[in-house]
Formats: sequence, structure tokens, C-alpha cells
Amino acid sequence: MPQSKAVVLLSGGMDSTTTAAIAQSRGFDVHALSFRYGQRHALELEAARRVVERLGIRRHVTLDIDLRAFGGSALTGDTPVPKDTPAERIGQDIPATYVPARNTIFLSFALSWAEVLGAGDIFIGANALDYSGYPDCRPEYISAFERMANLATRAGVEGGRVIIHAPLIALSKRDIVLQGLALGLDFELTSTCYDPAPDGAACGRCDACLLRLKGFREAGIADPARYQAALA
Amino acid sequence: MPQSKAVVLLSGGMDSTTTAAIAQSRGFDVHALSFRYGQRHALELEAARRVVERLGIRRHVTLDIDLRAFGGSALTGDTPVPKDTPAERIGQDIPATYVPARNTIFLSFALSWAEVLGAGDIFIGANALDYSGYPDCRPEYISAFERMANLATRAGVEGGRVIIHAPLIALSKRDIVLQGLALGLDFELTSTCYDPAPDGAACGRCDACLLRLKGFREAGIADPARYQAALA
Repeated sequence: MPQSKAVVLLSGGMDSTTTAAIAQSRGFDVHALSFRYGQRHALELEAARRVVERLGIRRHVTLDIDLRAFGGSALTGDTPVPKDTPAERIGQDIPATYVPARNTIFLSFALSWAEVLGAGDIFIGANALDYSGYPDCRPEYISAFERMANLATRAGVEGGRVIIHAPLIALSKRDIVLQGLALGLDFELTSTCYDPAPDGAACGRCDACLLRLKGFREAGIADPARYQAALA
Repeated sequence: MPQSKAVVLLSGGMDSTTTAAIAQSRGFDVHALSFRYGQRHALELEAARRVVERLGIRRHVTLDIDLRAFGGSALTGDTPVPKDTPAERIGQDIPATYVPARNTIFLSFALSWAEVLGAGDIFIGANALDYSGYPDCRPEYISAFERMANLATRAGVEGGRVIIHAPLIALSKRDIVLQGLALGLDFELTSTCYDPAPDGAACGRCDACLLRLKGFREAGIADPARYQAALA
């Protein structure tokens, strides 16, 4: 019996990489989808390519979409990436790195590709626990997208079913680290930092680095990522 | 008092042009959004530019997104555009010109721009009556997108409200013609045909032409569009 296909949103960070490994562990033939969306650096796309190679994913599409046309985020605009946010503040407000409707745009493209492939399963590494500041990482958002997706497509008309899987939605960063390691992932492949140095070393101070470091610390595991020397 | 901003999806066809005029008639400062998405021809983007100029719309963004990366539609791929569909068959099946999840992708970008602009209103010219073959033109789809959009964005978190307006959703093509004329539109500006000649003349035989011609005929008005000589 041929494997069922699934479209997996893959940024090359630890969450989406773990999600891709989970999709494979559930028996899916993973089709990875990445975006060149005007992010500050191309390192995460290089990480996505490394992950695709290491996991043996056979199809990987990288789409160009220019979210800079609208502006509005520290990840795509000229405002600085926030650094050294106190742990208790992370996730309390919508951060400057929030890209308006980004997950909706990414999931919409995933839906389009899934429909072309005849795939009913889409995976996203959204995580509500450590990123509750992003409105489009909450479980009620994922459910609402799934409901809309089932009305948007042939599946909805012809009796099929689209499922949006967000297997990390309720996990802590610690649990994501442990889950990824249990699946044999090498997190050295992944790129998490919002503002890495030109040589690829992570800053260790943006919200994404702080959450990643906290996850590894709480898991009692050394983070294999390379950090800038001053912070090592 | 400054006008409220609205994002209007504008393809340059008669439906989206009428929708833009309706948004203006309701007092909105229209921000028009078009896409270069791998469609067969650029004529509809030229039509969108003419409409923007004639309606005095001050901001118009055209985004490049390559839906051809996925294939799957006669509008973006190599399969032929169907011609001479009998009137009673149009809208009965999902047609070959359906682009998977296209409206979802377009509305997602509109949502992103609206959020950056601080706009709570998005207009789309979806029309269920004469295009019921497209799953993403049905009222229940539009409602589900709106519900998702309110969870996806700051508005949902901070108590704002996103409204997806589909003012043509229940209108016949005849009523759209009459509504557009009542708003002073010159439909000669608009481009509807899925498969026009190199000189821009409409084919008169694709589903979009057939529905447009039917609308004008039922309204008792001559269609000002230019059709290929053999069919005139």
C-alpha cells in the first residue's frame, strides 16, 4: 500500500523539524513546504535543506512570497529584533517579531498543495505554550483554519477531509526537545535564532533563542547549536 | 474624520471591479490587492490597473506568488481552458479552471495587509450563484474564513473585528451588471475572459465569457467588451 502523503510546513527550526519527524513516524510520505518570505536571513532555508536531506524527504518546495510588501514585523522590516526579554514576559504580549497572518498564509499554500497532491493531512509546528503571544499559534485558531479548509476545497464539496495536525501545540519546549531526541533528530541541523551572526552563530538573546535554551536546559541536555562567542 | 480603510481583492474582472465600487460607495478608502499568480495572461492585471486609475484608488499592491509550483488548474497549468460549456452545466461540477485554495491564499494576504493597515474590512467579489462550482465562493466558506481570521490576528486577541464582505455573493450576473452600472462603472475597463487573444479580445466561449454575456443579455445591456471577430 502506498504511503499517505502529508504536507509539512518546514522552516528549519526545531519545532517544524520535530513536526516533520513526527509526521514520518506516523507513516506519512512527507512533502515539505518552505517559504522565502522576506525574512532577514537565508540561514533558516539552509537549515530546512539540511533537514530535508537528513530525514530523506523526497519532495521539498520553497516558495517565494514577499511579505515585505506590507511591512509590519521585525522579522521582515527594519525594526530591531527584541533582545533579552525577561522569561516571564515572553508570550505575554504580541511580540514585534509577529508577522501578520503569517501562519494563515503558510497554511493556505499548504492547503493548495495538499489539494493538488490529493493529500488530506497538513502538519504545522505551532506551539501555544511557549508562544502564546502569537494569535495564530493557538489551538482555537488551528481548529478554525481546519473548519475553513474543509469548506474551501474539493474535499469539502466531495466528502473528503482535511486535517490540520499541530502535534506540538500543547508541548513545552522541554518536551519538544525530548520528543525530537526520541525520534533520533540531530538538533544541530536546525536554525532557531531570529538574528544570527553572518557566520550563522545564534545570538542567544532573541525570544526564539531564549526559549530554545530554556527548553534544552529544562531537558538537561546541551544545545548543540552554535552561539556567538561572547555568550558561549 | 478620516475614512476607514478596506482591502479589496481586485482581479480586474467585472465582479471584483463592481466590488471595489461598492466598497467606495460605502465610504471606504479602498486599498486594492492584485496577484501575479502564474495566470495564463497579464491582461487582467492591466485591467486592474485601469480600474485603479479610473476609480481613483490611491494604493494598489500587486504581489507575485507562483501557484504554478503546485500545478493543478487550467488557469495556471497546461491543460486547456474548457469552451462552449452548456449553460445548464456551468457551476454543476468543480471546473478545470478551479485553482486549489486560491481564494484562501488571496484572502490570507488581504488579511495580512489589513492587519498592517489597521483595517478591519476586507472585500472579495466571490459570487455563489453563477459559480457554485467553486467551493471557495460559497457563503459558508466566507463565514468560516471570517471566523478563522478573527482568531488569527491581533484583532481576535485585542477585541477588534475582521469582517469579510462578499457583497456579490447572492447576486446573479444580471444583478451585478445592473449594480455596477448604477455605480457608474464602465465595464469596458474590465477583463473577464480566461483565454483572450493576444490583442486582448475575449474568446466569448469560456465559462467566464459565457456567464458575463448571459448577465449582460439578461440585463438588456450591450456588453462593451471586445470579443474575437468570428464570434462578434
